[in-house]
Formats: sequence, structure tokens, C-alpha cells
Amino acid sequence: MRKIHVIGIGAGDPEQLTLQAVRALRSTDVFFVLDKGEVKADLTRLRREMLDAHIPDGTSYRVVEARDPERDRAAGGAAYSPAVGDWRSARAGIYERLIGEELGAEETGAFLVWGDPALYDSTLGILEEVLERGAVAFEYDVVPGISSVSALAARHRTGLNRVARPVQITTGRRLAEGFPEGVDDVVVMLDAHQAFRRYAQDDVDIFWGAYIGTPDEILVSGPIAEAAPRIERLRAEARERKGWIMDTYLLRRHPRD
Amino acid sequence: MRKIHVIGIGAGDPEQLTLQAVRALRSTDVFFVLDKGEVKADLTRLRREMLDAHIPDGTSYRVVEARDPERDRAAGGAAYSPAVGDWRSARAGIYERLIGEELGAEETGAFLVWGDPALYDSTLGILEEVLERGAVAFEYDVVPGISSVSALAARHRTGLNRVARPVQITTGRRLAEGFPEGVDDVVVMLDAHQAFRRYAQDDVDIFWGAYIGTPDEILVSGPIAEAAPRIERLRAEARERKGWIMDTYLLRRHPRD
Repeated sequence: MRKIHVIGIGAGDPEQLTLQAVRALRSTDVFFVLDKGEVKADLTRLRREMLDAHIPDGTSYRVVEARDPERDRAAGGAAYSPAVGDWRSARAGIYERLIGEELGAEETGAFLVWGDPALYDSTLGILEEVLERGAVAFEYDVVPGISSVSALAARHRTGLNRVARPVQITTGRRLAEGFPEGVDDVVVMLDAHQAFRRYAQDDVDIFWGAYIGTPDEILVSGPIAEAAPRIERLRAEARERKGWIMDTYLLRRHPRD
Repeated sequence: MRKIHVIGIGAGDPEQLTLQAVRALRSTDVFFVLDKGEVKADLTRLRREMLDAHIPDGTSYRVVEARDPERDRAAGGAAYSPAVGDWRSARAGIYERLIGEELGAEETGAFLVWGDPALYDSTLGILEEVLERGAVAFEYDVVPGISSVSALAARHRTGLNRVARPVQITTGRRLAEGFPEGVDDVVVMLDAHQAFRRYAQDDVDIFWGAYIGTPDEILVSGPIAEAAPRIERLRAEARERKGWIMDTYLLRRHPRD
């Protein structure tokens, strides 16, 4: 039976690999790398360095690269979910082919996922879809990783929740629609439009980070009115310089008395 | 200057330590262990085994144990936060004494935190309180860990959020008050009273786990109407057998059409 590991490799710092992840890397015959078609050479290089650092010399493995299908980001709004659905199905077709053609019957493959496979990552859903199609069979397991959320909190030395209170993890798109109900601590991922600016006049602290755990890491925290313009500037500069940006932030609203 | 590492050591599986955590363990002179006064010999043993496994022979370190102050759990309800506040201050006094008396001026101490220091853990708040008191000075850093939330999702091979949707992490106490607003995916921690039972008639799936990542791990998932009685039984049996239980779960509500 073919086996597949879905391995969370942490938020960018190669030291955030767990011992379990290192063991999984070492038991892998074929690494599948899907190129997002964006300028993310840095991320590809980081991943390569992880393999070089942790797989002993003389161990053979293969890296199979494929092109990710284009995602219809322009759809936006209400069309977001269906577009994601189409994209996921297209991706399932690619995964099915990769597993069927590139992985021997007794071999182990792996998908390396930045952060934690449980948070805003499509790999698990796609593998389930491949299994449902029924054309290829495999077993798979999941190795949890340090998410950018955990890494952000650690670098800011703050908790995600306050005592006995909840925290919500959501997207920039959702935050743009309004501050979530019933929570004062909100972590925002996938925010291409700096939705935090909407709350710049509110009594909110922000803990922001980009390229967390890498040499390019940028951290800003403080009352949002002061921090927001600084984040906007740093974010634009970094994006210009590197060609891409990955950032995450925590908003902490002060309770209304 | 004294240094302190707050090290997330994962949810129970010693293989969930990160390379960064191992490095921090190896650079530590004094480990501070606060005994919760409960029957958690298993957890103490697991922690000891981690130190034995990862600190090279011949490296010297000290383990300093202290008794945690009693927490007024009986207070409950609205009194919860003040009781936590008192308890935290009492704990800050103990931490202050430990750091001041047991850690040399050039030494490095460490607090080992199960899971991730950012989620429902008081260590960071207490250290900040010690610094504010001003009696002892130190630098500290935080090493993120695999939370029980990430470990739960990995073992169930599921995401925490659905595509482009939010997830909330909350407590059993809060869940008992009602299903959180605006989310259909809710992770529940610190639930001593199985608050999920309230939703047993709803269209909800549950992904439950106890002692995740340890040899005693128990996992149950499925529609809550079927799973809840099974979880109640397994939970009671395990608690009886081991004397303590640590469990976490994800509730996934099906959207109302």
C-alpha cells in the first residue's frame, strides 16, 4: 500500500520542525512540491534546505514538482467558495496523477505544508477528494506543525487568548466584513488587503508579523492607531523588495466597560 | 543578566518537540517544575523522560520543584476571573522567589509548558507580573509548541477551519453558555463538564481526543448524537483508571441551509 505523510514544517524557521517531522522526512521516498506559480523562490529554497539538513547523506529520495492550477482569485465575494471548489478539484486531479504515476506501490510520499496542515491549508481536503474518486489508493497520516499563529504569539511573547476567554482565527476577507461577534481576540490570516485598517480608530492592540521565523522577519505591535501606518509602510516596502509577503496578526480589543 | 526560556513541549508525544525546543532544553541550567498538587505523576514522568532523552550525558542541570498555590475553583461563575487573578499573583510570588533564589546571575532557567505557551497557559502572564514587581530582572523568550489543538486535528486528519471560514477556540465553561456566535467550527479546551452534551441533538460532528499523542490516547469522532454517549463512557473509564484526564475537541456544525 502506498503511504503519504502530510507534514507541517513550521512557519519559516527550520528549527521549528518537530522530531516527528524530521522522522517523517527521513522515511519519505518522494516529495511532492506544488509550485504556486508565484515568485516564491525563497520558500522553495527553504524547503530544499530542510531536506538537505535533515536527510542523511546517502539516503536517496526524489522530488517531483508540478504546477498548481491557477486559482480564480478575481471571482471574489460570494463566488469565493465555488471558485475554491473548482480549484480544489483541479488540484485533486493533479495529486491523483502525481500519486498514481510517481509513487511506487510500496513507497512513501510526502507533502510539505508550511505552518500546520490544520489551518487554512487545502492538502487534507484534496487528499480526501482523491481517495473518494477511487482511482488511486493510499494510506496517509498528518504530522502537526508550528502554525504561523503560534509562531507569531511566541515572537510577541503573548498569549492568543486572555484568561478564560476565547480567540477566533479568521481571514482578512471576514474581518473586512466586521469584527467577529463574541470575541475580543482575533487572529487574522490570508489578509491581502490589510483589513485591520478598518479598526484603526478603535481601542485595539495589534501584534503583527511577516516572514516570521526567517531572517526577514518583521514584527510590529502596539495600539493600532499608532501601529497601523507603520505596518502599512513596512509591508509595502517588504513586498516590493521580496516580491511576496506572508503575514499574520492578532487583534486584541479592549473590553468596553 | 538571567535568562528564561518558556518552552512549549507539545501535547504529550515527546516526538512533538521542535528542534528549537531541544536546543533550548540543552542551553538550560535550571528547570522549574510547578507541581499542580494533582495526581499527574504521568506528566511529570513524561517531562523527565524528555530531559533524559535530549540532554547529552555529562551535561549538568538542576530541576527545582515547587508547589503550586491552590486555585479557588469552587468560586466559579462570575467570580472566575478574580479567583484566577489572585491565583496568578500568588503564583507570581513563587516564580519571583524561584528565579531570585535558584537561578544564578548568568544562568538560564526554563519553564516547560505542555502544548503551546500561547493557548490557555498562564506562564507568560505570570512572568510579566514578576517583571512588573521589579524585584528580579531577567530576559525571556518563548519557544512555540504543538498545541493539543494541532495534535487533535492531526490525529483526526481534519482541518480546524473549513475553506475560507473561521474557527474559534474557547473553554468548556463558555460553550456551556451557548454555541459561539458567527462560527460553525469550535475547539473546546478545559472542559471538565462535557459541555458538548448540550448539543447532542444538533447537527454537529465532534472530533474528540484524550491524552493525545501518548500511549493512552483515545480518539472518537462522528455525529455528536452517536459519539457523545461513547465519549462520556470512555472519558469516565479513563479518568477512573488514570486519576486524571486531559481532553480537547472540535465541534463542527453543519450550516443551516
